[in-house]
Amino acid sequence: MKVAVALGDRSYDIVVEESYAGLGALLRGRRRVAVVTETAVDDHVGALVGAALDAAGITHATFTMGEGEDAKSLATVQSLARDLTRYGLLRGDVVVAMGADDAGFTAAVYYRGIDVVQVPTTLLAMVDSAIGGKTGVNLPEGKNLVGAFHQPISVFANPRVLATLPDRHYRSGLGEIAKYALMGDDFVSARVAALVARDPATLAEVIARCAALKARCVEADELERTGVRAVLNYGHTLGHALETATAHSLQHGEAVAIGLVFAAHLATALERTPPELAARTESLVAALGLPVQAPPGVAGAELLRIMQRDKKSAGGLTFVLDGPSGIERVDDPNPAALDKALAAIGVEV
Amino acid sequence: MKVAVALGDRSYDIVVEESYAGLGALLRGRRRVAVVTETAVDDHVGALVGAALDAAGITHATFTMGEGEDAKSLATVQSLARDLTRYGLLRGDVVVAMGADDAGFTAAVYYRGIDVVQVPTTLLAMVDSAIGGKTGVNLPEGKNLVGAFHQPISVFANPRVLATLPDRHYRSGLGEIAKYALMGDDFVSARVAALVARDPATLAEVIARCAALKARCVEADELERTGVRAVLNYGHTLGHALETATAHSLQHGEAVAIGLVFAAHLATALERTPPELAARTESLVAALGLPVQAPPGVAGAELLRIMQRDKKSAGGLTFVLDGPSGIERVDDPNPAALDKALAAIGVEV
Repeated sequence: MKVAVALGDRSYDIVVEESYAGLGALLRGRRRVAVVTETAVDDHVGALVGAALDAAGITHATFTMGEGEDAKSLATVQSLARDLTRYGLLRGDVVVAMGADDAGFTAAVYYRGIDVVQVPTTLLAMVDSAIGGKTGVNLPEGKNLVGAFHQPISVFANPRVLATLPDRHYRSGLGEIAKYALMGDDFVSARVAALVARDPATLAEVIARCAALKARCVEADELERTGVRAVLNYGHTLGHALETATAHSLQHGEAVAIGLVFAAHLATALERTPPELAARTESLVAALGLPVQAPPGVAGAELLRIMQRDKKSAGGLTFVLDGPSGIERVDDPNPAALDKALAAIGVEV
Repeated sequence: MKVAVALGDRSYDIVVEESYAGLGALLRGRRRVAVVTETAVDDHVGALVGAALDAAGITHATFTMGEGEDAKSLATVQSLARDLTRYGLLRGDVVVAMGADDAGFTAAVYYRGIDVVQVPTTLLAMVDSAIGGKTGVNLPEGKNLVGAFHQPISVFANPRVLATLPDRHYRSGLGEIAKYALMGDDFVSARVAALVARDPATLAEVIARCAALKARCVEADELERTGVRAVLNYGHTLGHALETATAHSLQHGEAVAIGLVFAAHLATALERTPPELAARTESLVAALGLPVQAPPGVAGAELLRIMQRDKKSAGGLTFVLDGPSGIERVDDPNPAALDKALAAIGVEV
């Protein structure tokens, strides 16, 4: 399956298929390829990618980065960029980013931007972070505060490699999938059992549908300026704040899942949606094995302070909420509604 | 005087005038402005900019960075980005970059890119680095190896502030001006005395002419892809290598001046131009008080090794040389010609 992302001279395909043969074909003739991976990536997946590049006769080397939010730093970017220089990577060469968040940003700024192919190895990356060109690293003050828009030249999502993903990582991806299901057509509720069982055919179908939804938003608002792309942040304002407040002990998709429940309660408290939305959201999130409550000990005041620094905000508090005209940005909701929604996810206010 | 840079929705004006009143007018209504400056910038110039922002009623704060090539690092970017976060700078706010090379790159990646106004305080920045959106920092392996294209929303060049510039910094700017004079119409030779005397009217005219030449190249090739913008790198392949080889003890414009002389000799050795070019180049460079020879102790082999890593190159050696069809990229010139041109600037081969 191929999902096209139409962005003029930055257009590309998201290829969902059970092999990396297409990757070799795409890069045939390139002088040199740097495969950037994470310690968390299964060696077997790295070997599959390496074999595809070998079969196409492409010179390549692998660079392994630390994993997780701590490794997403400018220090890691510096270290990787220096390694790439020493490998002799130049303009016209390619970075293959295998689940390394820093790799996308490094490719965006190395020699002021070189080609990158995203090879997501987690469900989360396949349906979200590998698509759309958003790259970034963290500062101690918050997540993704430094970054760039840099579209990949292709994305290769192979659902077979998800079979060996640790359970918690896999479920984290289901959090983003829940978001897509809540954005409109619910193509997930009827497939929960197959998804939890990691059925490959179901996965391929669901990944392609999520990717297509994301692609449409990215096409309409590549640089996140018109607000269209903001719908992709449904559940994310609170989600990001929870990740920061818990020092990233929550997985991204877990935090988003709680954020979706929070957003449904906030929309209800603001009388934007019938209360049914909160029940439906909690039910979907729980069915996917994800939390509907914040972990204990998170203070509402701290979450609010972190959210005021959110880069989608302009000084006030900005959420992305469902409502009569669909999912959209809502600025500065009234404090009583905020407190009510925070209480609904178990946060002290 | 205004020079327009036409880049669609990224178009902007380069304003050459003897006051910063236009800066206040441009930013009126912005929530918050971070002025980023260097220790090298005259306090008086900072005060002029601050007064213009005050007069327009704009909330602002000043952040002072270290100066020079050592400070152009990802560590500096991290430190500045953290400061901006703590100041509460958000999307929609503005960075005013006063001669701080890191400031442009930080603005390019902070929150994935926020608005930046360039206020160059050196002659070099007014005719070159403040225009065209190229931002970058150094790695230990070389200059500007990490960076981004990020157009400013305006450039304000005030020739009055050049009166207090240290002599060597000022002359460094004349090196870039020599490049523009050698690119076509020589508008410099007849004005050498007035330029060396820093005559404000002459400076305004020359700055605007250089800015216009640069603007035309940037318009034709914003992302340095088609090769048109490569002409701006005339003198720079060797210039950059000299800066690296001498650990940045040469000023940029001094290195470019030597690079221009080298390029003329190389074009002559390759029989692309009559020998007259080398004499004319040396004469212009010397008249501006700039070196025509490399400093002692620089080895040809080291320069060649550094140039092979140049980001304009793709593995081989790429120069920008004059010739029958004007200034253009020339790949892999023959080694004998290279040695001859290196010897002509006093480098051991």
